[in-house]
Amino acid sequence: MQQPQTLTGLTTPAAVVDLDRMTANLDRMAAYAARHGVAHRPHVKTHKIPALASEQIRRGCPGLTVATLREAEVMAHVSDDLLLAYPPVGAEKLRRLLALPDSVRVTVGLDSAEVLDALAAAAAAAGRTIGVLIELDLGMHRVGIADPRAAAELAARAAHARGVELRGVMFYPGHIREPAGDQHAALQRLSDDLAAHLAALRDLGLPATLVSGGSTPTAFQSHHVAGITEIRPGTYIFNDRTTAAIDACAWSDCAYTILATVVSTAVPGQAVVDAGSKAINREELRGAAGGGFGALLDRPDVVVRAMSEEHGLLDLSVSDWRPRIGDRVRIVPNHVCISVNLHRELWGVRGDRIDAYWEVEARGWRS
Amino acid sequence: MQQPQTLTGLTTPAAVVDLDRMTANLDRMAAYAARHGVAHRPHVKTHKIPALASEQIRRGCPGLTVATLREAEVMAHVSDDLLLAYPPVGAEKLRRLLALPDSVRVTVGLDSAEVLDALAAAAAAAGRTIGVLIELDLGMHRVGIADPRAAAELAARAAHARGVELRGVMFYPGHIREPAGDQHAALQRLSDDLAAHLAALRDLGLPATLVSGGSTPTAFQSHHVAGITEIRPGTYIFNDRTTAAIDACAWSDCAYTILATVVSTAVPGQAVVDAGSKAINREELRGAAGGGFGALLDRPDVVVRAMSEEHGLLDLSVSDWRPRIGDRVRIVPNHVCISVNLHRELWGVRGDRIDAYWEVEARGWRS
Repeated sequence: MQQPQTLTGLTTPAAVVDLDRMTANLDRMAAYAARHGVAHRPHVKTHKIPALASEQIRRGCPGLTVATLREAEVMAHVSDDLLLAYPPVGAEKLRRLLALPDSVRVTVGLDSAEVLDALAAAAAAAGRTIGVLIELDLGMHRVGIADPRAAAELAARAAHARGVELRGVMFYPGHIREPAGDQHAALQRLSDDLAAHLAALRDLGLPATLVSGGSTPTAFQSHHVAGITEIRPGTYIFNDRTTAAIDACAWSDCAYTILATVVSTAVPGQAVVDAGSKAINREELRGAAGGGFGALLDRPDVVVRAMSEEHGLLDLSVSDWRPRIGDRVRIVPNHVCISVNLHRELWGVRGDRIDAYWEVEARGWRS
Repeated sequence: MQQPQTLTGLTTPAAVVDLDRMTANLDRMAAYAARHGVAHRPHVKTHKIPALASEQIRRGCPGLTVATLREAEVMAHVSDDLLLAYPPVGAEKLRRLLALPDSVRVTVGLDSAEVLDALAAAAAAAGRTIGVLIELDLGMHRVGIADPRAAAELAARAAHARGVELRGVMFYPGHIREPAGDQHAALQRLSDDLAAHLAALRDLGLPATLVSGGSTPTAFQSHHVAGITEIRPGTYIFNDRTTAAIDACAWSDCAYTILATVVSTAVPGQAVVDAGSKAINREELRGAAGGGFGALLDRPDVVVRAMSEEHGLLDLSVSDWRPRIGDRVRIVPNHVCISVNLHRELWGVRGDRIDAYWEVEARGWRS
């Protein structure tokens, strides 16, 4: 099938990336990391595309962060330093982890002796050394160890096990969603908690060469976290409505949109487009006021008020704009990572011209 | 790669179908349709799998309902009678619609003169006749025409256009989500509105051979809707937590689950599994009380309280059950159609034995 050459030639819904905006987003994060001497290991869950990972590496990223074995397998083709920021549980996942090329330096984040012991045993049996980061809970309460003594004890267990090498600690500050200017108190609490963990490690004579944290909302404030050596933002490459709503980027930094076509205007007060929950995804705004599941790139006051699987209902109540059937819109989703995962491919554009095409290669396949 | 033979052998997260439950669900709907003399044209958006569509056809379904061109193209291999319950807008979609095999009887639902005229012109130019159903808004307020006179005028336009053939009307009662026993008033309103539409068509001397409606929550009450000739439930093949919560099926009729593994128990009061919003999906319960995004098949009081992309947080506060890392659970999602769309394949099981494997063939690909 012939590839379309222009935005106009795309069948909707389609996932579209503004290449100039993406480039600016990549450059901005690279410059921040360089300026503050912090390593940047971007999380590829956002794009799942090797070519985009290469763009990140080219800008100085020493390695990549992955969440699934599928992501690791795909990204091993472009990076020789992968952090699996997810505990690999079960024989099959350990087998796949240890089947990654020997040339790849592999590190795993984990928070339990069960996962550590199984990983160490499998790695030792395979004659390989896998790096370990102890995952800390610094306030998000998702995974990770909150108690410094308990975390240090797990670190000691890692330091003494065959097959693994203790490399440090990691955390994910996903609970900090205030606008950047209002993060000071939250980052101070996080720094204090992190300091207690690092002290507990020192008490046991353990190294924490790597102290890995950093989400997109906190990325540009990472230099306020004492001891951090590495950040792992992912969303920043595209940004999204949530990132803009909490002031972690400008609206004009949103590089990813879903191109959609108006298919019905029969019900008064709304227009229906052919992008619904199977193209946009149903994530609410977090950390900021505002309803809906996305907003129009060129008219951010017009939001996707409701969705069915293939229907997005644009709320026209706050706008004089009255689209016609066949008109096209570009929707900035609330959460870009989930939207990308719904598409087989992304189209890179400059203006109306399609300049890039990428398969979303690492999306769910026996992850 | 060798296929796993048992549930135990699957890598998680995995989408699993209980074959005996699915068969019972298929048989129950077929028996209802036969008993009441109503045609059953199941919506394939739920499974997107030709082999499962064939199971529906084998039980007497005269044709299938599809929402996207991709679904139509895939299902044209197993059915010769397709209803595209979605307005095809734009030259490329019309081209693909008219490129469906000539042996397939194609019908399209639409609610505007713009879509009708473009469809008729394209069909006439291609020397083909496409059936048309006028989409009515009988209370859902998503798409469709609410005013009987306006709907009848669009029907008249279809009746007189070359390239298309007026076949009747369609509606989707997606707003009726009361438990089956409490639907009487809502179905009466719907019947009254439908009667007004059918009268307006008769006034213009127009046929409505086909009167197509019927969602999974209302399916078994369809005989209370005067004039209905066809129902289009989709979810019923698997059911889900929402369907059970509104009493449109029993919990033991839920045939679809996401198999997941406990990966962390570090944060007190919860267990974290490796199925999050990229495997389950973030749909809330609608029409029933209850939080969370899914519940455990064997412990429906344990719900997925929160999710990240690859993390599902099981709320243990209401249960004495304390899982260990490596334990496996099966999660019934709130909305099965969206979950299926997140997976490349479904595994059909009887007990621990894998008896079927299907690729989710019609999921998003230039839909």
